[in-house]
Amino acid sequence: MTKAHEYATANHETFVKQLAEWLSIPSISTDPAFKGDIQRAAEWVANDMKRIGLENVQILPTGGHPAVYADWLHAGEDKPTVLIYGHYDVQPAVIEDGWTQDPFTPRFANDRIYARGATDDKGLVMCQLKAMESLLATGACPLNVKYLIEGEEESGGVNLSKFIKANQDLLKADTVLISDTGVRSLTQPLLIYGLRGIVTMDVIVTGPKRDMHSGAGGMLHNPAQALSEIIARLHHPDGRVNVEGFYKDVVLLEDAEREELQKSDYTPAEWEAYMGDLAEWGETEFSKVERTGTRPTLEINGIAGGYWGEGFKTVIGAKAWAKISCRLVPAQDPVKIFEQVKAQIESLTPPSVRVEVKIHDYGKPAITPLDHPATQAALRAYNAHWEEPTLLRRMGGSIPVVADFQDIMGLPVVLLGFGLPDSAAHGPDENFHLEAYKKGVATVITYLNELAKS
Amino acid sequence: MTKAHEYATANHETFVKQLAEWLSIPSISTDPAFKGDIQRAAEWVANDMKRIGLENVQILPTGGHPAVYADWLHAGEDKPTVLIYGHYDVQPAVIEDGWTQDPFTPRFANDRIYARGATDDKGLVMCQLKAMESLLATGACPLNVKYLIEGEEESGGVNLSKFIKANQDLLKADTVLISDTGVRSLTQPLLIYGLRGIVTMDVIVTGPKRDMHSGAGGMLHNPAQALSEIIARLHHPDGRVNVEGFYKDVVLLEDAEREELQKSDYTPAEWEAYMGDLAEWGETEFSKVERTGTRPTLEINGIAGGYWGEGFKTVIGAKAWAKISCRLVPAQDPVKIFEQVKAQIESLTPPSVRVEVKIHDYGKPAITPLDHPATQAALRAYNAHWEEPTLLRRMGGSIPVVADFQDIMGLPVVLLGFGLPDSAAHGPDENFHLEAYKKGVATVITYLNELAKS
Repeated sequence: MTKAHEYATANHETFVKQLAEWLSIPSISTDPAFKGDIQRAAEWVANDMKRIGLENVQILPTGGHPAVYADWLHAGEDKPTVLIYGHYDVQPAVIEDGWTQDPFTPRFANDRIYARGATDDKGLVMCQLKAMESLLATGACPLNVKYLIEGEEESGGVNLSKFIKANQDLLKADTVLISDTGVRSLTQPLLIYGLRGIVTMDVIVTGPKRDMHSGAGGMLHNPAQALSEIIARLHHPDGRVNVEGFYKDVVLLEDAEREELQKSDYTPAEWEAYMGDLAEWGETEFSKVERTGTRPTLEINGIAGGYWGEGFKTVIGAKAWAKISCRLVPAQDPVKIFEQVKAQIESLTPPSVRVEVKIHDYGKPAITPLDHPATQAALRAYNAHWEEPTLLRRMGGSIPVVADFQDIMGLPVVLLGFGLPDSAAHGPDENFHLEAYKKGVATVITYLNELAKS
Repeated sequence: MTKAHEYATANHETFVKQLAEWLSIPSISTDPAFKGDIQRAAEWVANDMKRIGLENVQILPTGGHPAVYADWLHAGEDKPTVLIYGHYDVQPAVIEDGWTQDPFTPRFANDRIYARGATDDKGLVMCQLKAMESLLATGACPLNVKYLIEGEEESGGVNLSKFIKANQDLLKADTVLISDTGVRSLTQPLLIYGLRGIVTMDVIVTGPKRDMHSGAGGMLHNPAQALSEIIARLHHPDGRVNVEGFYKDVVLLEDAEREELQKSDYTPAEWEAYMGDLAEWGETEFSKVERTGTRPTLEINGIAGGYWGEGFKTVIGAKAWAKISCRLVPAQDPVKIFEQVKAQIESLTPPSVRVEVKIHDYGKPAITPLDHPATQAALRAYNAHWEEPTLLRRMGGSIPVVADFQDIMGLPVVLLGFGLPDSAAHGPDENFHLEAYKKGVATVITYLNELAKS
């Protein structure tokens, strides 16, 4: 236990109160009605940064909601600089969604604090900030630190990416620390060292000029049927994606990494919790954790056409559309994959309908290798404060900012997260376990110490 | 020209004014807010029936909106009795849908009357009623007549079917006359002598217990994909429905009937108007009019799953669903077909998802053979008042009440319709051409005369 750890333990209750104060500001980024609250939440964290001794605290415009910057650069030039990222905006929440209490009136129960943003991401940003407070207050900050806490993560804005591009000097660092992920349990950490990339697209199939009465059925190709026929041919029966060149850049894992990943594979109980007694699906020659973390996919995120509401309408819809995304793994290029999928869909479309395939958005895959010093420091930090050995995982999802830091600035990113699986991020009764909060602060302190040594 | 025809010609302007008066009552059957107007519209037609000399006029409860009954049975026991059916309810309509003027304030322009219900079905019911008025006023009604004008046709109610079952004595007749269809043009009639049956069903595919983040993609079978894969296998590549036994009861047409139907096949211009330059689809060994009128189909009337709105949501929807209907031809049994489709869908469903197939509704196919005396009387009536020879068609759609009269009461049904192709039934600016109104009244007068002779 360092002095910084002792400080953190002694001040735990204050840290909790501060988090509750921040959580009471409904900083919903997607709804313009909350613009004033976004500003208040940014000011709250800026003020806390100043109070704990961070310098150059600034609320910077981004083209969208502002980002909060701060730094402390007195460790010496021979010491590394870490850029710490988080976000102060939250998902929408109203009590009618199923909350026990108003989502912006923090409630304490079951050793947890319940409020929108409790885990995602205010609680985790507080782990970073209170770790820094503990180091600064005890005169023990071992490296240079920069903070970037943004306000558009939950609204999928493109402004932060532009902001990073435009402010590379300000943000210059050696590594990035992000706390926006979870642990396996209150006793077992989970270190995510890879994230899939993503490319999203809209597929629109059109047929008759207007919706038709289904009495016309038999002579024309129903767009909903044609779309289904196209979608059905985008996978081989064995679960592989049926797009030419799709797997060309995919790197197969070494046996050692496959074995390491196996340790955190989904358990039968986890599968049952999500899927009941349904059979698994996909490239079953790979384990589930490999399929979601290390293999690319093509997924139908939405489909619609004709009349899908209550009752029945005997219509042939003039169009049907699908929202399709591909999750991508390192070395795959999202734009190239989009072009391949588009070409395949076009080649599968018969002359009886028209098809249009449009790219929506994309983010590159990201990875910080297991043997990278920052990854190793993170492992030591987790292992110092959590009872069970850290599990390692490549995650199936995507965090676009990770790829931004990696691609734009060439920085390795470490993800130190502390959310429990039942923290209900994005759902009603989102919460943060207070013991996870305590362990999170301690883990970040140790991580920064280990990073300074590495 | 009979005296009845002279009466009709002399009173045309009065008939138009009466229609306009009836059209000003917004008798929307699907919306409970219009219950009072439904009652007023029923009373309006009941009063007109009394005025023109029909007897036993009654507004009868059906379990839903009331039906109006009336009769005139003084032609003698040796004369046939015709049951005349129509409906006084209309589709919803508001000016915001694109109407030039309030849909319940009749407007005259382009030799037409514009209002909701102008064609469907108040205008056509008035053709029947004003023909009867002309016959009664001139002492020339040649047969016994019963009227049934119902109020739930546009809301798809099941009450009329029950009402017919329960009132077979009251409704006892030799043939049924329905005016609820269209002509080919202002100079060319179209006699529909067959209607496809229909069975509608809901197909629900479920996978994970809750919507999943698409980062989980790769290990589980996405329900929207699984549903597409099932749908894709419900047709053979040549357009035939891939359901065992589906075509077993389908009777192939004689060459003579095929040739007769060919005369009213869709023209290239009609195809282009609906489909642009798209290729046709289906069982191309049959003409388009045969495919829609004499061949059964399986059609996707709606499909939905995941997120289909604006923007993008990287979700794997917990369920996806489709609304499927089969249009059926004579000798096919809707319930048997449903069971066959259900069995096929279940057999196509892999163990990685669950499927549920539920019947929604059904109606039997209907046909009155070309050589039936009532059909021949209808042909003579059309040919007496329209410039071009009557085209004959089996229609792709379904009119459940036709099958009800046929199946419950064993009655042949004749469809004498007068709506023009651009009458916009169910759409904004619905209208009825006043010349078609005039010809419609004259045609019904002649039909009743011809029917009495046959």
